[in-house]
Amino acid sequence: MRTYLDCYPCFLRQALEAARLTSADENQQYCLLQRVLDELHQFELTSTPPEMGHRIHQIVRREMGVRDPYQQAKVVSTRQALTLYPRLKALVAEADDSLRTAVRLSIAGNIIDLGVTQEYDLEGTIRRVLAQPFAIDAYANFRERLARADGVLYLADNAGETVFDRVLIETMNKPVTYVVKGGPILNDATRQDAQAAGLSPVAAIVDNGCDAPGTIIRLCSQEFRHLLAEADLIIAKGQANYETLSETAAPIFFLLQAKCPVIARSLGVPVKSIVLKDGTLNTKGSS
Amino acid sequence: MRTYLDCYPCFLRQALEAARLTSADENQQYCLLQRVLDELHQFELTSTPPEMGHRIHQIVRREMGVRDPYQQAKVVSTRQALTLYPRLKALVAEADDSLRTAVRLSIAGNIIDLGVTQEYDLEGTIRRVLAQPFAIDAYANFRERLARADGVLYLADNAGETVFDRVLIETMNKPVTYVVKGGPILNDATRQDAQAAGLSPVAAIVDNGCDAPGTIIRLCSQEFRHLLAEADLIIAKGQANYETLSETAAPIFFLLQAKCPVIARSLGVPVKSIVLKDGTLNTKGSS
Repeated sequence: MRTYLDCYPCFLRQALEAARLTSADENQQYCLLQRVLDELHQFELTSTPPEMGHRIHQIVRREMGVRDPYQQAKVVSTRQALTLYPRLKALVAEADDSLRTAVRLSIAGNIIDLGVTQEYDLEGTIRRVLAQPFAIDAYANFRERLARADGVLYLADNAGETVFDRVLIETMNKPVTYVVKGGPILNDATRQDAQAAGLSPVAAIVDNGCDAPGTIIRLCSQEFRHLLAEADLIIAKGQANYETLSETAAPIFFLLQAKCPVIARSLGVPVKSIVLKDGTLNTKGSS
Repeated sequence: MRTYLDCYPCFLRQALEAARLTSADENQQYCLLQRVLDELHQFELTSTPPEMGHRIHQIVRREMGVRDPYQQAKVVSTRQALTLYPRLKALVAEADDSLRTAVRLSIAGNIIDLGVTQEYDLEGTIRRVLAQPFAIDAYANFRERLARADGVLYLADNAGETVFDRVLIETMNKPVTYVVKGGPILNDATRQDAQAAGLSPVAAIVDNGCDAPGTIIRLCSQEFRHLLAEADLIIAKGQANYETLSETAAPIFFLLQAKCPVIARSLGVPVKSIVLKDGTLNTKGSS
């Protein structure tokens, strides 16, 4: 998905929020914003929004000498989500269609997205997403592809959301490779965050070799690109994975909440929609 | 009030909204945003936010060759407000304290602010503002100063809001000079908008000689500056007048809704607060 001009105000907001997480004083925030304005000037609208996000957060981390402004927030999100884990498991166990409920819960966990908003109501979101109709619902296709798949390549999104992913992975009962970021970016899950969420016993955790939001394939490691090319079935979580992979030919399903108006418009759904989108239609020569 | 870094995303949003009102295509919008990024780069944080707003809208109007992107919106707002006029008058007539109710209604009308949001619920806002406690309430001082004043210099804000101002002016029963903008800026009222709202029979309409939001005194006409210096009592409506006059020594009262977080913080009140603030405390040597 390309970048729209409506993303520009949002880029500045995100830069400012990240700067403040590093405890930058106002003068430092001002200098960082000036740098981001320069980057915006040169930015090509044909690039995806996460490419600009990548640059913004590189600037903030480098200029402020802070390796991971979101580290503390990620620890807190994971801890909060873990306290909900027994309830999530019970919801799946009691469900008529446990896979469908686990899919919904995984999408509910996608509310933990500090690139969009610093505040979220996790328990309210779970209630909402369990009851809400899907705006795009490729569940039948997803279940069928999953039944046939030898394994799943699962592209993670945020720390904390990882716990919700774990519930889906435990429910799918397939070998899963869980792909996290190669370095800190926003509140996206890294290997450490996935481990803290209890993913190690249920999936092979690998990183994509890149510290951009979403999956900017050309910046990812050779190893990850090989996994992507060979994957039987890919689950891509969250907005940034949709933004960066929406036009990629691959056996991919996007699971997300459409939290921003630009992405909602690209998907053709209202803001706050829940989406399970079949991206396999992009696949060249696929059945 | 100075500019804060939180205003930057909002400046870009406002530029984009104004550009779209001129029917600029995406390439033109892109070029306009590039120009605004340049301006932002050079902008001094010691300036007030309306000074940047002034530049943004100058760029949009000049580059797009459109004299007044908000003209149609202003006509619609005024027409909508005029249909409410009989009800506003009835509310004042039935009130225990008609002046206080008219003040509230004038503040309710301040929701018609297309610089903040393109959509507003006017009738819902009237109900809310009639019931809502003031976050800052200098009504006692205001009433006393008004009783002693020979006349009122009334600094208008937006078209449509003008109808609510008219109700307050009719209730105050003092000679009023109603100050509008010297040229189109956002949906701020110009002479034509004030006339369309029925202000001519109840106030002397003058313009401030400037097409900036709020009241940037150094850009205003000599005549207006004279009126300001000589005024017995000044009513300043809306956020932009607060932003540009909050540190001015004058017998001034600010009537507004705090719609933006930065202005709310400057006033020390929550967003959505209604405010009647006594600015006479800035007055050097005033009683």
